[in-house]
Amino acid sequence: MSNRNMIIGQSGGPTAVINASLAGAIECAFSLKEIGTVYGMVNGIQGLLEDNVIDLNERFENNLSRLNRLSMTPAMYLGSCRYKLSDDESEYEKIFYALRKYDIGYFFYIGGNDSMDTVDKLSRYAIENNIDIKIVGIPKTIDNDLMGIDHSPGFGSAAKYIALAVRNVAYDTSIYSIKSVHIIEAMGRNAGWIAASSVLARDSKNVAPHLIYLPEVPFSVDRFISDVKEKLSEYNSVIVVVSEGLKDENGEYISARNSVDKFGHVMLSGTGNYLKNIVEAHIGCKVRALEPGILQRSAGHTISFTDMTEAQNLGRVAVHAAVDGKTGVFATLRRISDNPYSVEYDTEKVSVVANAEKTIPLEWITANKNDVTQEMVEYLKPLVRGAVQVPYRDGLPDYVGIAYLDMKKQKYTD
Amino acid sequence: MSNRNMIIGQSGGPTAVINASLAGAIECAFSLKEIGTVYGMVNGIQGLLEDNVIDLNERFENNLSRLNRLSMTPAMYLGSCRYKLSDDESEYEKIFYALRKYDIGYFFYIGGNDSMDTVDKLSRYAIENNIDIKIVGIPKTIDNDLMGIDHSPGFGSAAKYIALAVRNVAYDTSIYSIKSVHIIEAMGRNAGWIAASSVLARDSKNVAPHLIYLPEVPFSVDRFISDVKEKLSEYNSVIVVVSEGLKDENGEYISARNSVDKFGHVMLSGTGNYLKNIVEAHIGCKVRALEPGILQRSAGHTISFTDMTEAQNLGRVAVHAAVDGKTGVFATLRRISDNPYSVEYDTEKVSVVANAEKTIPLEWITANKNDVTQEMVEYLKPLVRGAVQVPYRDGLPDYVGIAYLDMKKQKYTD
Repeated sequence: MSNRNMIIGQSGGPTAVINASLAGAIECAFSLKEIGTVYGMVNGIQGLLEDNVIDLNERFENNLSRLNRLSMTPAMYLGSCRYKLSDDESEYEKIFYALRKYDIGYFFYIGGNDSMDTVDKLSRYAIENNIDIKIVGIPKTIDNDLMGIDHSPGFGSAAKYIALAVRNVAYDTSIYSIKSVHIIEAMGRNAGWIAASSVLARDSKNVAPHLIYLPEVPFSVDRFISDVKEKLSEYNSVIVVVSEGLKDENGEYISARNSVDKFGHVMLSGTGNYLKNIVEAHIGCKVRALEPGILQRSAGHTISFTDMTEAQNLGRVAVHAAVDGKTGVFATLRRISDNPYSVEYDTEKVSVVANAEKTIPLEWITANKNDVTQEMVEYLKPLVRGAVQVPYRDGLPDYVGIAYLDMKKQKYTD
Repeated sequence: MSNRNMIIGQSGGPTAVINASLAGAIECAFSLKEIGTVYGMVNGIQGLLEDNVIDLNERFENNLSRLNRLSMTPAMYLGSCRYKLSDDESEYEKIFYALRKYDIGYFFYIGGNDSMDTVDKLSRYAIENNIDIKIVGIPKTIDNDLMGIDHSPGFGSAAKYIALAVRNVAYDTSIYSIKSVHIIEAMGRNAGWIAASSVLARDSKNVAPHLIYLPEVPFSVDRFISDVKEKLSEYNSVIVVVSEGLKDENGEYISARNSVDKFGHVMLSGTGNYLKNIVEAHIGCKVRALEPGILQRSAGHTISFTDMTEAQNLGRVAVHAAVDGKTGVFATLRRISDNPYSVEYDTEKVSVVANAEKTIPLEWITANKNDVTQEMVEYLKPLVRGAVQVPYRDGLPDYVGIAYLDMKKQKYTD
């Protein structure tokens, strides 16, 4: 087999460990004689179409400590895009023209369901047109809603973030002997995995979160009010975690409701703020809503070791699969056991994951719909384990600079 | 000198390192023959009045690893109160009756300006009434607005939190090649120290935050719009940090303004959300507001080593001062040099700090009022330095359980 080049890109929304998959893939490629130069698409497929391509050997081959730091740099070194492939034949021709220009034999795309759809389409086009380029996906998403994989890289670190935040808030709000409610809104439109992960904040010293509401089951405002009242009768400080995507019995998003404050002003707000107004109006104690937003997916300084390691490994598995001749697949992992935690790596057809969505099994939600079961805890526990020794400089994480800055500076001294 | 007991309490709002001051004071007291039993007031002065007092020797004397973990537990182990001493003589009598009951010779109160006012009043009452109890303050506040001290314990960790958040958000928002604005609202009503600390997010690889607005200078919406437009002409992703307490030329809080969204709905919101609506209306690019809120003061897992160590030392200094016969003072630190960073510890009369407020010197704010100077950076840099090796269990920080739980369980096994 002759030596061919590889190209890799990132797409969709960021996670704290997508760069770990990138670093794993690059490091593996450097070690394989079948692969020549390693190129990166800056801003995904869109960058490829605009010839926004950089040489990753130049940037990392003689600087393995920098490659190591790349694994601990959040978001996307190569930038992202939200580019939906059209059915226009000429678009495919442009993409494969660009790939031929760089003598690409191996193409990797790190992303979620949409990106896996791109992998599916490109690999089918290559096969149909007898183009010898292996096209392989590497999964990522904080939402954990990908099919065909036990859990998504990026999710473990988001889960850890929300558990950390809830535990810290539980301490913070415990200090006064007055009644209060804190509502923390977690990311997740249709799948409640991140909100559910807040359960890990509990330990022998902390019972918060007291209530967890997920989008997998219909949300009732009346039941919410009575749940909160019941918890307030037992605890001074009640912490409630809600998914941003809570829906009512009619399938309407709670966040789409306008609420009216005590002055009669209409408030447009998210799920957490809507429920804050409900508590104010119906219970009347001190109440705050917290929405960590994109902090949940970008906390590079508190990534889970399990998550980072698995993200790296999936990058390596993808590169090996392509060199072994596989195409139209993505790197995946299957859980062998919870305790001791163990996974096996493999590949799976991308058609399994493209355009599908995995939600929480209903049997992992308690009967009263305001908490999760012990099975859910066992599933989540290993995913947040292990602290990563992120390198620090002047008291802050010393991340790798992102690629578009690299391009401006043309020097990679850090 | 006969052996007398000591009592310690915490008051006001939480920080991530108040328990480090508590741990420092307890550890020092255990080592001094002048001090007998170490008691804690649960929920400050209010707890003392309600005889809500716990024995800290029982809980920590034979468990020094637990005392060590107490330094790395956020918020307040002993709980807090917001109790303003009245001028009523009988209230003082009740307090000193309670102190006599426990044979207290040394009284310590960890708190901000209000708490130092309490220390001032109690110490003057004791002197006037010939009561031999030494009353000493230990300072804390995330706001860094205390007079008589170079910087307040708790501030360094809040500064670190905001710098971490801004650096992570800078990476997260850099991924798309479209124009966007992110507005991060930092705590601080009258003093902009926390917002200013976001400057530390900058390094050789990241220029964010692009704009910083502080409450020390009047805020102009027109200038804000032109500043943001100018930055957008140079950068795709612009990150703006604002203090919650921004005021206009008339001294009115920006957060008090109602804004009207694109549908004509009146929005009641904080400073960040108001400015988000301004950007939407006047610039029209993608814009998000982020308000980390109490996460800024409760992030026990990312405390600054400098901050934690100084908080511990101030606890020790206070105990030594009381045993040396001082009263009506608080433990303080003075900076000797920035580089190498060095401080000296001392005590200062509490009257210096009570009911006063330290804001940012105007010469540390740039002439165009949207950034801070290099002097500010030099002042801030040492305060966030050093990562603390917080003990983890199952991937999450293993904090000490708070005192009111201790009281219920009456066992301290962790």
